[in-house]
Amino acid sequence: MNGEVPVLGITMGDPAGIGPEVIVKALTHDAPWRECVPVVLGEPHIMEKARRVTRGAPPIRIVREIPGGSRPKEILVLPSTAEDLSDVAWGQRDPRCSRAQLDFIRRAVELALGKRIHAVVTGPIHKEGLKQAGVTYPGHTEMLADWTGTRDFAMMLAGEHLRVVPVTLHMSLAEAVSSLSIQGILRTIRLTHRALVEWFGVHEPRVAVAGLNPHAGEGGLFGREELEIIAPSVARSCEEGIRAEGPFPPDAVFRMAVEGRFDAVVAMYHDQGLIPLKLLDRDNAVNVTLGLPIIRTSVDHGTAYDLAGTGEASEGSMLAAICLAARLARRKGLGPGRNHGG
Amino acid sequence: MNGEVPVLGITMGDPAGIGPEVIVKALTHDAPWRECVPVVLGEPHIMEKARRVTRGAPPIRIVREIPGGSRPKEILVLPSTAEDLSDVAWGQRDPRCSRAQLDFIRRAVELALGKRIHAVVTGPIHKEGLKQAGVTYPGHTEMLADWTGTRDFAMMLAGEHLRVVPVTLHMSLAEAVSSLSIQGILRTIRLTHRALVEWFGVHEPRVAVAGLNPHAGEGGLFGREELEIIAPSVARSCEEGIRAEGPFPPDAVFRMAVEGRFDAVVAMYHDQGLIPLKLLDRDNAVNVTLGLPIIRTSVDHGTAYDLAGTGEASEGSMLAAICLAARLARRKGLGPGRNHGG
Repeated sequence: MNGEVPVLGITMGDPAGIGPEVIVKALTHDAPWRECVPVVLGEPHIMEKARRVTRGAPPIRIVREIPGGSRPKEILVLPSTAEDLSDVAWGQRDPRCSRAQLDFIRRAVELALGKRIHAVVTGPIHKEGLKQAGVTYPGHTEMLADWTGTRDFAMMLAGEHLRVVPVTLHMSLAEAVSSLSIQGILRTIRLTHRALVEWFGVHEPRVAVAGLNPHAGEGGLFGREELEIIAPSVARSCEEGIRAEGPFPPDAVFRMAVEGRFDAVVAMYHDQGLIPLKLLDRDNAVNVTLGLPIIRTSVDHGTAYDLAGTGEASEGSMLAAICLAARLARRKGLGPGRNHGG
Repeated sequence: MNGEVPVLGITMGDPAGIGPEVIVKALTHDAPWRECVPVVLGEPHIMEKARRVTRGAPPIRIVREIPGGSRPKEILVLPSTAEDLSDVAWGQRDPRCSRAQLDFIRRAVELALGKRIHAVVTGPIHKEGLKQAGVTYPGHTEMLADWTGTRDFAMMLAGEHLRVVPVTLHMSLAEAVSSLSIQGILRTIRLTHRALVEWFGVHEPRVAVAGLNPHAGEGGLFGREELEIIAPSVARSCEEGIRAEGPFPPDAVFRMAVEGRFDAVVAMYHDQGLIPLKLLDRDNAVNVTLGLPIIRTSVDHGTAYDLAGTGEASEGSMLAAICLAARLARRKGLGPGRNHGG
């Protein structure tokens, strides 16, 4: 769109985890530099340390504000925490890191809502660290939704083979089963449909809806959620003009999507969607938050303390998250704060 | 073993489904003839009809008893029902078919328990048809367990990439969650270990145990089953000398197994195991019942009425089920009625 290049804010994630090094590794590839201006919202000491464990990394340059226009190939770091992280050790939980990882996300949200950046890419945070910092969100996604005043949101995992959107996320399986509702499923189908059209540019997307029970309940024999909750949700979404189908047997629907019959699968719970996704697309799956007023992608992995500082962590997911965020921002016309319906 | 060739009883399944034709198609391959003497427990009219929709099928010969020794390449059919099926239509539910599919299984169990055949391979049956015939088992496996007086049993799905054994089977997900117990998980781990050693010939097999909740409960944050039920089951099995590990995050464990770290995965519920299995091994997965006094393998698919009579159904699973049953029977020393511990 008009030659403008999207500016991406990349949060560094937990400074003690693999976030810093997967960012540096991703930026040793050419693709991000062709598609965006990447700016790391992080801490320069840590980024420099991460750079030292990575071969062929571009130099790091500290910036005090978001740059305009394209730039030489330097990793721009916007210092985004007041914590002193100069002596932080890789792979050790540290209260300063727990707080700093939150500072980076706050900065990202502020810049994105203020339209200073076109999209946010988030590095991995440490969940126990969140609790340590006094924050009680079950995950990154829920926190971003709250901070951007978003009520209806969903997490899409997008890989090369599959796109899945679970209706329920970070809760026990028992709770996931008992919290299924027509409203929740319908909301997820709508968010999925809208993201496929507006962000992914799919014309008349086909959305598969998984069942909850074995064999999709086998006509009520193994549970009635398909009859009473899921099928009515699919019917309602079809009335709204969405090409949704289902409920399909959970052990068949992902293969159908992989074979091209569907553009995305709405899954009933976290693992129903993530088991097939991570099996097929482990190294390149990207987490996209649907429903936010900002574009946000994320790696689909954690902080991997055991790998931190070794330079061995795969940058595949971070690289894919950066490139997808850039593409979604371009397709949205570089207007991150624009209303979806507008 | 001593040059003897195992004799397999193959049940024809629902006469109106794809069972008859996938048997004929599987027997157009050379592999089954090298590894076993296949005998179809079925009905000759239907088998002849199935042969007519299959290219290159060997001739059919009706036999009145189980043959000894190897034979020319003819599809032996042992008539095993008193139902007249001469005018049955493909893909139509028919009360005669519902009853006949049960007759075939009864005959198979009787022959296997009487050591007249070395293993049983079952074709797909129609579950609604079971109910129609007045039988209330939730599935094939539960019926075979009951008919052979087996209390401790489990279903292994074995493919080229993965072997999975779900702790719970044909019940709603809510019921699967609430029925998890240390006893049930421990029983499944033991059955899995024993089958890997005795049937699959794996020395010191490594068994992965999946968690139930997202991220395996994340330390109790998303459910306590891992802490209270699954981890204690793994610990108990280790005390018995089994190399079990877990609970692992469900969205990571199957990849670990595919990469060779484990010989099988014990899954907590039907779809947890079947989603990854069917995604990777859809066309060659075999269902093996663990714990029975007889060797039984089965196709992992249903009757597919929409395909019946077209000759288009894939014979992959039936072919794999026949070959695996033959191998398991050989490894067990052609003693189908022998006690596992003996």
